[in-house]
Amino acid sequence: MPVNLTAPVAAQLLPVAGVSLGVAEAGIKRADRKDLLVMKLDEGSTIAGVFTTNRFCAAPVIVAREHLASGKPIRALVVNTGNANAGTGEQGMAAAKNTCAELAKLMGCDAEQVLPFSTGVIMEPLPIDKIVAGMPKAIANLKADNWFDASQAIMTTDIVAKAVSRQVQIGGKIVTVTGMSKGSGMIHPNMATMLGYIATDAAIATPLLQQMVTEATNQSFNCITVDGDTSTNDALMLIATGKSGALIDASNSALVQAVIFEVAIALAQAIVRDGEGATKFITIQIEGGKSADECRKIGYAIAHSPLVKTAFFASDPNLGRILAAIGYAGVEDLDVAALSLYLDDVLVAEKGGRAASYQEQDGQRVMQQSDITIRVALNRGALNATLWTCDFSYDYVKINASYRS
Amino acid sequence: MPVNLTAPVAAQLLPVAGVSLGVAEAGIKRADRKDLLVMKLDEGSTIAGVFTTNRFCAAPVIVAREHLASGKPIRALVVNTGNANAGTGEQGMAAAKNTCAELAKLMGCDAEQVLPFSTGVIMEPLPIDKIVAGMPKAIANLKADNWFDASQAIMTTDIVAKAVSRQVQIGGKIVTVTGMSKGSGMIHPNMATMLGYIATDAAIATPLLQQMVTEATNQSFNCITVDGDTSTNDALMLIATGKSGALIDASNSALVQAVIFEVAIALAQAIVRDGEGATKFITIQIEGGKSADECRKIGYAIAHSPLVKTAFFASDPNLGRILAAIGYAGVEDLDVAALSLYLDDVLVAEKGGRAASYQEQDGQRVMQQSDITIRVALNRGALNATLWTCDFSYDYVKINASYRS
Repeated sequence: MPVNLTAPVAAQLLPVAGVSLGVAEAGIKRADRKDLLVMKLDEGSTIAGVFTTNRFCAAPVIVAREHLASGKPIRALVVNTGNANAGTGEQGMAAAKNTCAELAKLMGCDAEQVLPFSTGVIMEPLPIDKIVAGMPKAIANLKADNWFDASQAIMTTDIVAKAVSRQVQIGGKIVTVTGMSKGSGMIHPNMATMLGYIATDAAIATPLLQQMVTEATNQSFNCITVDGDTSTNDALMLIATGKSGALIDASNSALVQAVIFEVAIALAQAIVRDGEGATKFITIQIEGGKSADECRKIGYAIAHSPLVKTAFFASDPNLGRILAAIGYAGVEDLDVAALSLYLDDVLVAEKGGRAASYQEQDGQRVMQQSDITIRVALNRGALNATLWTCDFSYDYVKINASYRS
Repeated sequence: MPVNLTAPVAAQLLPVAGVSLGVAEAGIKRADRKDLLVMKLDEGSTIAGVFTTNRFCAAPVIVAREHLASGKPIRALVVNTGNANAGTGEQGMAAAKNTCAELAKLMGCDAEQVLPFSTGVIMEPLPIDKIVAGMPKAIANLKADNWFDASQAIMTTDIVAKAVSRQVQIGGKIVTVTGMSKGSGMIHPNMATMLGYIATDAAIATPLLQQMVTEATNQSFNCITVDGDTSTNDALMLIATGKSGALIDASNSALVQAVIFEVAIALAQAIVRDGEGATKFITIQIEGGKSADECRKIGYAIAHSPLVKTAFFASDPNLGRILAAIGYAGVEDLDVAALSLYLDDVLVAEKGGRAASYQEQDGQRVMQQSDITIRVALNRGALNATLWTCDFSYDYVKINASYRS
């Protein structure tokens, strides 16, 4: 069950003027399931995105990058679940391009003005006919007040949908930011099996929007890990429609940027809280490093250790496993006698071993919680990193041993 | 259950003249369990070793390195299970040194002539009194024909003991090589929660012996992974007693080196076959790389992917997960359209997608086997790497969620 995470409430998801969303049941993998989403962007909208770094990136990722690079204004996004169209070679590229061309016909725009996204099983042919057949239904369903259904349509192994809205006043104008994401396995930095869409009705030119989405990704989706697997299909898209009348440039971007970051972090954390089989949400804070990079190395060594993750699942303060992970993180000159390890407020280890003040029952108390912070003070510099991860349970194995069947 | 691995047969484990072994039940963590081993080396023996690279290396690792560096001939090794004496700070260092001093008193040698080894739970104080109390019993048990009991005494979560013997004729003399190892979790290159001891009655000077053990480690224990965790306590020691009368130097070392490699590989593979919760033994061959390093990167990305490992557990040919792992292995200029993926003899993927000839039932057939080879032909160079790993099952989680209790 998701860790301290509930599904969004439809009434709390605010429409973003200029964006309409339509969903359909296209029967891509199963019947009776919303699995197709079309997002329509009004004229004057800008869009920027960040994509997976996986060399086996999916066909839709390649096509979306090409279409963004064409410079033509993007008018629509199309998202299918049930099939990732990844590891599908030339046939997959053709399928992604056809998807765009078919939607473009229906929307009255060029194929290059459509961005395709797919998520689901890898290395199986995309059932393009079903997707095309579902498009008119999705278009008929287009409406601004449809983020709730849209967030459900992009789910795969997610247990709950992930969506959130925030508002902020800028120059007397109310600016809305609404976002949604999907993903719960194959989650690792440099993104995840993760799709995210954040829209605002502020007006933001593409170069600034690209900076914002890159930085938002670094602060949010690139700080989470469930299983260390980097997906073939990740994408985070940031849309600005301008309909609020608030004009944002470098001089006044701080406020809206902060809200976009807040939405991105909420969506990223929601993915971890809904991590496959997760029973614990773990915040890992590495402080006092010589570089942010070494802090991240140590944080990810802890976050990826199956031994650490299974100990958290068991609520067993077998905390030496955290020390072992710190030790093999690859920070060559790390002085292990100088660092301190805390579990929430409990000092666990210092001077290379268990702290004199540490009592097993204090560690046990924290381990029982569903939200836990592991804090490592390296005491060798001024830089920090924060990551979020979850534990590793029977259910992770169960879900991933049966995902296709 | 171990994958195609049975316990050694006592009668097939050959004594190595010059090495005697004695075991005892010291009650370190539990009663009624062999948990203490003393190995006595006759005069004239040489020894060399390779240790963990973990920055949080255990106190016995530090002490063993110091004692080897002292240059005094090593006369005894002492191994305890049930406690790793790692993450134990200065108290742990004192305990490791005391262990050596106490055994040295009983053996009539200097403390620097004893090497200590510990394996078990991390960050708990070593029960030195129990170890010292057990020493006379272990010494009373010393005998050459005791490898079978010794291999049992060093087990922790291992299900079966791991030991093997080989013989070879060199210059008319029969040379024996017998080795044993332990380890089944926290197994990753640059070693593992793994202890290994290989002894031969050939005469080999320390510098050549050090080369041999380093190279043997690179060909064996550094090619295995169960869970990607690098332990604090790993060590592989190679002992040469000279009692066979076969004098080995650089000019005639090939044959005995080959046998030592064979023993090391058998012991390393046994650790994977007995990997925590393992149901499948997976050989990963990466061929045709520009460098051995990039082959190893790709191999380890596959070997560490929980998604790949759970698919193998499920015997589900969800082989796109292998492509995804290849794609995020960090080989920046990898052309995914140029590589081919095979499962045993079945061509699964080429040209960036599923091979035209691939049939699901062929993949399914191979996935049912308990021994499986994943082969990736990168088609961009002449270098290769081979790794061995296992799948990821409910039982891995179960074992590691309950290891301390």
